[in-house]
Amino acid sequence: MDILIKDLDYAVDLNLNLYRDIDILLRRGDKGEITIHRGRNLMEKFNLDRRDLKIIEGNRRCAIPGLSNNHTHIPMTLLRGIADDMILQDWLESRIWPNESKLTGEDVYYGALLGCLEMLRFGVTSFNDMYFFPEEIVKGAKEIGIKGAVGFPVIDFGTPQYKDLDKLLRACEEFIKRYLREEKIRPVVAPHAPYTCSRDTYVQCKEISQEYNVPLHTHLSETRYEVVEMENKIGRRPVEYLESIGVLGENLIAAHCVWVTKEEVKKLGRYRVKVVHCPGSNMKLASGGVMPLVEMLKEGVSLSLGTDGPASNNNLDILEEMKICALLHKAHRWDPRVGDVDTVLSMALNSKSIGFENRDVVLLDLKSPHLRPVHNIKSNIVYSANGNDVDTVIVDGEVLLENKRFSRIGDRDLERIYTKVDRVVKKFEVQ
Amino acid sequence: MDILIKDLDYAVDLNLNLYRDIDILLRRGDKGEITIHRGRNLMEKFNLDRRDLKIIEGNRRCAIPGLSNNHTHIPMTLLRGIADDMILQDWLESRIWPNESKLTGEDVYYGALLGCLEMLRFGVTSFNDMYFFPEEIVKGAKEIGIKGAVGFPVIDFGTPQYKDLDKLLRACEEFIKRYLREEKIRPVVAPHAPYTCSRDTYVQCKEISQEYNVPLHTHLSETRYEVVEMENKIGRRPVEYLESIGVLGENLIAAHCVWVTKEEVKKLGRYRVKVVHCPGSNMKLASGGVMPLVEMLKEGVSLSLGTDGPASNNNLDILEEMKICALLHKAHRWDPRVGDVDTVLSMALNSKSIGFENRDVVLLDLKSPHLRPVHNIKSNIVYSANGNDVDTVIVDGEVLLENKRFSRIGDRDLERIYTKVDRVVKKFEVQ
Repeated sequence: MDILIKDLDYAVDLNLNLYRDIDILLRRGDKGEITIHRGRNLMEKFNLDRRDLKIIEGNRRCAIPGLSNNHTHIPMTLLRGIADDMILQDWLESRIWPNESKLTGEDVYYGALLGCLEMLRFGVTSFNDMYFFPEEIVKGAKEIGIKGAVGFPVIDFGTPQYKDLDKLLRACEEFIKRYLREEKIRPVVAPHAPYTCSRDTYVQCKEISQEYNVPLHTHLSETRYEVVEMENKIGRRPVEYLESIGVLGENLIAAHCVWVTKEEVKKLGRYRVKVVHCPGSNMKLASGGVMPLVEMLKEGVSLSLGTDGPASNNNLDILEEMKICALLHKAHRWDPRVGDVDTVLSMALNSKSIGFENRDVVLLDLKSPHLRPVHNIKSNIVYSANGNDVDTVIVDGEVLLENKRFSRIGDRDLERIYTKVDRVVKKFEVQ
Repeated sequence: MDILIKDLDYAVDLNLNLYRDIDILLRRGDKGEITIHRGRNLMEKFNLDRRDLKIIEGNRRCAIPGLSNNHTHIPMTLLRGIADDMILQDWLESRIWPNESKLTGEDVYYGALLGCLEMLRFGVTSFNDMYFFPEEIVKGAKEIGIKGAVGFPVIDFGTPQYKDLDKLLRACEEFIKRYLREEKIRPVVAPHAPYTCSRDTYVQCKEISQEYNVPLHTHLSETRYEVVEMENKIGRRPVEYLESIGVLGENLIAAHCVWVTKEEVKKLGRYRVKVVHCPGSNMKLASGGVMPLVEMLKEGVSLSLGTDGPASNNNLDILEEMKICALLHKAHRWDPRVGDVDTVLSMALNSKSIGFENRDVVLLDLKSPHLRPVHNIKSNIVYSANGNDVDTVIVDGEVLLENKRFSRIGDRDLERIYTKVDRVVKKFEVQ
């Protein structure tokens, strides 16, 4: 059924054009593709009957495209708040890894359900994930209805799912093949990082990604430690290293890129690497450096935003992440012009980096005092709003959230999921 | 009427003690004072009749004390989003001041109403403000019901309300006298800053504050510029200067304190100055430095949080400010242990700095996916929650927000206020 959103106060499109007092019509074509029309009197214009339309009230609301969370580890919802304010290595070794090793596929499924619900509630319509038991994440995402680039994680010392690297790589290829024709799911090969995957591993991952034409998703230059270690071991910095083994390219999605030189930024631009900036996680884990926003923009690098996993953020709220991004770069450069509204909003809407067209519509509720008055709606979105202001979410022409309520998941289902999650996390050791 | 909050999942008290599965009873004594009891079977224990109680459902909720916004310019809600991403001086001179000069007392009243509603919605039960037409802010705060330390702003070149400094100072004293016996309002003398107020002005402000035993509220060392200017002019840094003219003291509330030396931090500690940290505003305006949190804590300085005005933040959300605070200090020190959960939560609850006992109760709604599961409720509050998660607010024993709805202000009143605000801001020039 086509959808008409009537009497919107404001709308912003993917190019950040601003519309006032407008309607939006979402029409589904013969092949299922969605087209978006903005204007007035669209029912008359397209000769539509009210009975054939799902009509949504747009009054006191603003429509934006779907938000995209381009680097995360969704099932880490299960570990949200289990350990904060700790040194990275200690945090990983004493709190995160020991608890993660206890997770079963079913546990990961419930963590994924919870995270997908959180993202949907916050207007995130597509994500790019990396976590073990990825088929469970696919299952969770499909149930909730948002779009997922789901990475099959490859790491030399194995995952809780596959201890053996060869098995892991074969399973990776099987995973890619299995989900290649999904509508809302894109399988991704996800070698963890240059300090946990050998040259051989990266090359094999690259081959799989090329054979099936799917992206590679990796961590890159997140901490000083890994950069120094690589420089000491092989005399190259991580970006240079990935170039030397032929992994840099248009299909590479690189998360973090915090500790990179100007020369490395140029390479990222030249090879059209998709860089995902995770300011909240970098700050919380005290990674030290700051992703060089100004230099990345200058070199034309495709930039987007990610929250990272909910154990290091601790939520999946891209609206919040936009503000953190803007504030971080202003403070870092001592220049309030850096990280401006349009730049961070573009980053937050960039689902293209992870392979999804953005035909989604998110309505923000403007009835709260903190979103009044409106001098510049884009400023209110970036600096004043938060995820809870999301009112309605339409993904690929389906209304998945309406008036802040999930369409597919009722209150009882929600309670059932929470109960399951509470049961799963009982096995964790909380110190 | 006494209030019983039943079956809370969690409660955190002012000392950050944690309670699980508990009830809270708020009782009003003979002199109107509120006492808070936490426990089980409180009705039986105090021999109370259900009909004499207002009963609030605490299930799937967490109770915390009221949040305190200790440095703000509330009526700047009117200027929210009017100008962002600009160099401070340009921002002030071309966008903020020219528009502020057009404001009438009635305009400020509507700006204050809007800001007080926003704070109440976000669980802020007390604030410390500085803006012209302060009697209008008093009026707004009293209507909404939250507690305000309302500063009468003193500045050598006058305010839109009083052009002449002598008149300003006389009006200041009148203001203090007029509101000295209010229940929820504390009048405050608010000399703007060392670079806009002469020595004489500060001394006279200090005299008024001493005579009536009210606080002084000032900006202090927010930007490099003012520090350098003062060093050049009089050979002293701002904190040293205020010491030399006898203004440092227990009743001084100093906002920002970004550009201070270790010696100055020691002075702030020794004189028991109340320092208000505004991380969001400092980052957005690119003030450069970072309030030295570690050093301040070491010297025992009383610390709290402020959002600053909504034109430089751009909201009044102390829950969000806690996270920004924690992230900023971890990133700044390259140390994730700095700005830990307990430290920032204490800062956010510190209404004592601005002279208010905190007998308020704020309930957070834990039914949203981003607040599940709960390993450490304090972590979820600081890192995962935002202002919209506030469900119920009780100020001095009165329920002012319940199930996210204002008790005193209906939907129609709200629309009327928004319409008024929209009319006020029509006079602004938006470039």
